[in-house]
Amino acid sequence: MTRGLWVTLEGGDGSGKTTQATLLEEWLREQGRTVVRTREPGGTEVGVLVRDIVLHHRGEVSPRAEALLYAADRAQHVATLVRPALERGEIVIQDRYLDSSVAYQGAGRVLDAGEVRDLSLWATEGALPDVTVLLDLDPRVARERLDAADKPFDRLEAEKAEFHERVRAAFLALAASDPHRFLVLDATLPAAELAAAVRERVAALLD
Amino acid sequence: MTRGLWVTLEGGDGSGKTTQATLLEEWLREQGRTVVRTREPGGTEVGVLVRDIVLHHRGEVSPRAEALLYAADRAQHVATLVRPALERGEIVIQDRYLDSSVAYQGAGRVLDAGEVRDLSLWATEGALPDVTVLLDLDPRVARERLDAADKPFDRLEAEKAEFHERVRAAFLALAASDPHRFLVLDATLPAAELAAAVRERVAALLD
Repeated sequence: MTRGLWVTLEGGDGSGKTTQATLLEEWLREQGRTVVRTREPGGTEVGVLVRDIVLHHRGEVSPRAEALLYAADRAQHVATLVRPALERGEIVIQDRYLDSSVAYQGAGRVLDAGEVRDLSLWATEGALPDVTVLLDLDPRVARERLDAADKPFDRLEAEKAEFHERVRAAFLALAASDPHRFLVLDATLPAAELAAAVRERVAALLD
Repeated sequence: MTRGLWVTLEGGDGSGKTTQATLLEEWLREQGRTVVRTREPGGTEVGVLVRDIVLHHRGEVSPRAEALLYAADRAQHVATLVRPALERGEIVIQDRYLDSSVAYQGAGRVLDAGEVRDLSLWATEGALPDVTVLLDLDPRVARERLDAADKPFDRLEAEKAEFHERVRAAFLALAASDPHRFLVLDATLPAAELAAAVRERVAALLD
């Protein structure tokens, strides 16, 4: 993709993605940049409908159906929102992208991680972010943060601790396999320190 | 798949799939068979939600998102409804399956037909029907039938005649490439005559 800059944030729930996205957005707006804040699933109208199915359907959703729904959300999101914004030269800050699918669906569940990745790349015609910030955090620490916030659990949050350990390991393996794209940060560091590291990487790419 | 028998009906809207499915179902029930009537999209609760998105979303649905939504419906449908029924030894009569996706999405639209087929086969772990009845009909005749029935148009029905010509050609090419699975019938024949041809093929498979 051309012109704009595409930043994705990855990591488990409770790792601070929203905080970092907000701090990055504020800094970029101060520089006079046009910023699009978005997320998957649910970054488009179609995506909101898909997200409702995946997260809140009461019956069984088969593993392949779930992976395909996420891929549909992604196809719609990249085609109608991300790609047009980047072509206008804007900066897209996005909560979760294909690395989440690979980590949660592939490593965490029953599907082959490579197949899930191929599915996402087919969905988006191979679109990859310029930088992916991985906020790495021990799932037990994340759990304590989420409990403190007293947020209602969704289906993924309710699954057990071992699952989240496998997701964390999968994220770290993805980052190791693509060090040029990933910026891995220790999410236990103070938010301001993390934000500075993110700004440094983004500033280098904007120059 | 094992034990039961899986029959799919294909062809454009107005080709008489519902009539033939009903006649086949009645005949099978008279034989004391357990029959599951179903369809795609929309054969499951998740599928109904997906069908609503594809057919009735007011904005743009990108071609890849649409193909992935159909594949998600299919994955859920085969995993939670079709496969369990076949494993119980039941007969599944299904309105539309992957041949519709290949014909409508691949040949009719912008996507590669082989990729759309691969997507469906990934969704279902390669599940194929025992017999696929193709009710072949000139789209102009189908249009006249639908106009007479005064049914409201959905998005696909509203698209233009040339599209339906390409879909018909794609269905016939699929049938030619897999003559063992397909039973191609001239949908202008009387319904009773078509039903007899369908019964003959199904009876041979049940023996």
